[in-house]
Amino acid sequence: MPVGTKGTVKGVDPDELRRLGASILLGNTYHLHFRPGAQAVADLGGLHAFMGWDGPILTDSGGFQVFSLRDTLLGCDEDGVTFRSVYDGESARFTPESVAAVQALLGSDIAMCLDVCPPVTASGADAVRAVELTTTWAGRQLAAPRAEGQLLFGIAQGGVDPELRRRSVEEIVELGFDGHALGGLSVGESRDLMLETVAAAAPLLPADRPRYFMGIGDPMGILDVVERGIDMFDCVLPTRLGRTGSALTWEGRLNLKNARFARDPAPLEDGCDCPGCTRFSRAYIRHLVTQQEILGLRLLTLHNLRFLFRLTARAREAIEAGRLADFKREAESRLGQEPPCR
Amino acid sequence: MPVGTKGTVKGVDPDELRRLGASILLGNTYHLHFRPGAQAVADLGGLHAFMGWDGPILTDSGGFQVFSLRDTLLGCDEDGVTFRSVYDGESARFTPESVAAVQALLGSDIAMCLDVCPPVTASGADAVRAVELTTTWAGRQLAAPRAEGQLLFGIAQGGVDPELRRRSVEEIVELGFDGHALGGLSVGESRDLMLETVAAAAPLLPADRPRYFMGIGDPMGILDVVERGIDMFDCVLPTRLGRTGSALTWEGRLNLKNARFARDPAPLEDGCDCPGCTRFSRAYIRHLVTQQEILGLRLLTLHNLRFLFRLTARAREAIEAGRLADFKREAESRLGQEPPCR
Repeated sequence: MPVGTKGTVKGVDPDELRRLGASILLGNTYHLHFRPGAQAVADLGGLHAFMGWDGPILTDSGGFQVFSLRDTLLGCDEDGVTFRSVYDGESARFTPESVAAVQALLGSDIAMCLDVCPPVTASGADAVRAVELTTTWAGRQLAAPRAEGQLLFGIAQGGVDPELRRRSVEEIVELGFDGHALGGLSVGESRDLMLETVAAAAPLLPADRPRYFMGIGDPMGILDVVERGIDMFDCVLPTRLGRTGSALTWEGRLNLKNARFARDPAPLEDGCDCPGCTRFSRAYIRHLVTQQEILGLRLLTLHNLRFLFRLTARAREAIEAGRLADFKREAESRLGQEPPCR
Repeated sequence: MPVGTKGTVKGVDPDELRRLGASILLGNTYHLHFRPGAQAVADLGGLHAFMGWDGPILTDSGGFQVFSLRDTLLGCDEDGVTFRSVYDGESARFTPESVAAVQALLGSDIAMCLDVCPPVTASGADAVRAVELTTTWAGRQLAAPRAEGQLLFGIAQGGVDPELRRRSVEEIVELGFDGHALGGLSVGESRDLMLETVAAAAPLLPADRPRYFMGIGDPMGILDVVERGIDMFDCVLPTRLGRTGSALTWEGRLNLKNARFARDPAPLEDGCDCPGCTRFSRAYIRHLVTQQEILGLRLLTLHNLRFLFRLTARAREAIEAGRLADFKREAESRLGQEPPCR
């Protein structure tokens, strides 16, 4: 899922997303709650009409932003979480019922539960408390009103502690959601520990419903979690890399600011069918990037999204053909180990 | 002509320009000479291939930038003009022959002569000297090599002094160019004086060749000079206004940052067929603009370009039907007097 943080996937038009092959977008409840406000979005026909995207939209709960922007976190109690808005510094509060109401107004196809995401350094007691509150809140949100037809996904926490993660998964699954997510991973722990956790947790999630890893987007990371049973994931990586001048390719990442591309007539990636590769040279895109021209950042963003849509399409084909391990080995030998990303 | 300053019309893709109705673009020789360099552009197939635009391109000479960025101007002599590059502060020099060579490498369809653009406050002697040098340089550039099939347009100077402007027009026309431009206008003089100058000068330009007013783009300004005989013009106004959050409409300019648009479900302009108006509300575009999202600036830019292409299409129809004066009166009553623009 490309991330449409504030009601737009940064730099990309919804028609372009369709042509690139996007089948679902993520919208950030935290940002839309504050700007322009969920009631404003509802008055304008809901998030789909507002942003001109008629495909599925998943909205997160806002919890990840609240807990990860730790210098704005004021306190978390049994009932909800209090924090300062990054928009105006005013005190604000999220509860399971309030984020359900916001997501109902946004009218997303899939709403996510408000969960407690402790820092990777959380002590044992804090980690247990996060799991307990996450379960309590999940139950409350399950009972809260939703938009008509809106699905609700539960989120399991528990960090990389095997027992705590298993407990959270079991408690969340027990509640009976339309789909299940693993939260609180890819937040600073080692990649090996993260993958061990996914390997142990994913098989505990019902296989007849989507299994969603929140926040991964580097090519090898995607294949790593897919191999362990994950069906869905989101990340700002392809769009953020594009805006900062880098391209994802099967030769690894290219930094288009590099002078070696100044006279390079080749496309970003041979054989890519994106709007950048079919029309423009690396030299031109490098020129645009170094001159801070919007078109350069856009072309890189479009390419990176297309790269990941093609990667996941190939992974799907490999799964169906029973040769995912082969495909992953090929990818690893060509891409190397990309740096982790959230 | 939309202005493709650095090898891209800011924020817009060449395919979008085609769909909007652009028939010719302007490229800035000054900027392309320094970044990425004309030889680099030539090595990559020329400006058309480099920027993915297969329609006509007119390149200016770079003279306007050299003379208007006055704190970088080092000196102008009989042979050429010396200045500091805005890119690296290094001393650089343009002569009629050098700008001809640069434009030949760029491979534009229409090249422009290097002219001397004095400030609007130039004294009588300086103004005369500018006209004399402009004529001398025009003759030299006419004799310089060009790209195959490349047209060359002469530029008349002379400010708003009727005699001096007439002298410059006559000298330039006498040299025998493929088209003719009025330069050194819309640079700080009053709009009335500018229009008087155009009214007197345009009829002296051969009617069987394009008559080009350099640097005007506000809707009423375009109609004002068209009425006086001008066929071509360029301006960064539609793209710059878009990037700063404003829309050109038949109700006048809209500043989308204004809170009154926060819940406005209407398109930027009723009846407009641009990619913004056909899909998005003013409320959404305002949200994007206030959140500094690229898509907002892009949608406004696309709208503003489409607005001007439709305006000029209607002006052409009105000319053919012999009712340009009526159309202009209608436009004036609806648009009011827009602020002048360069």
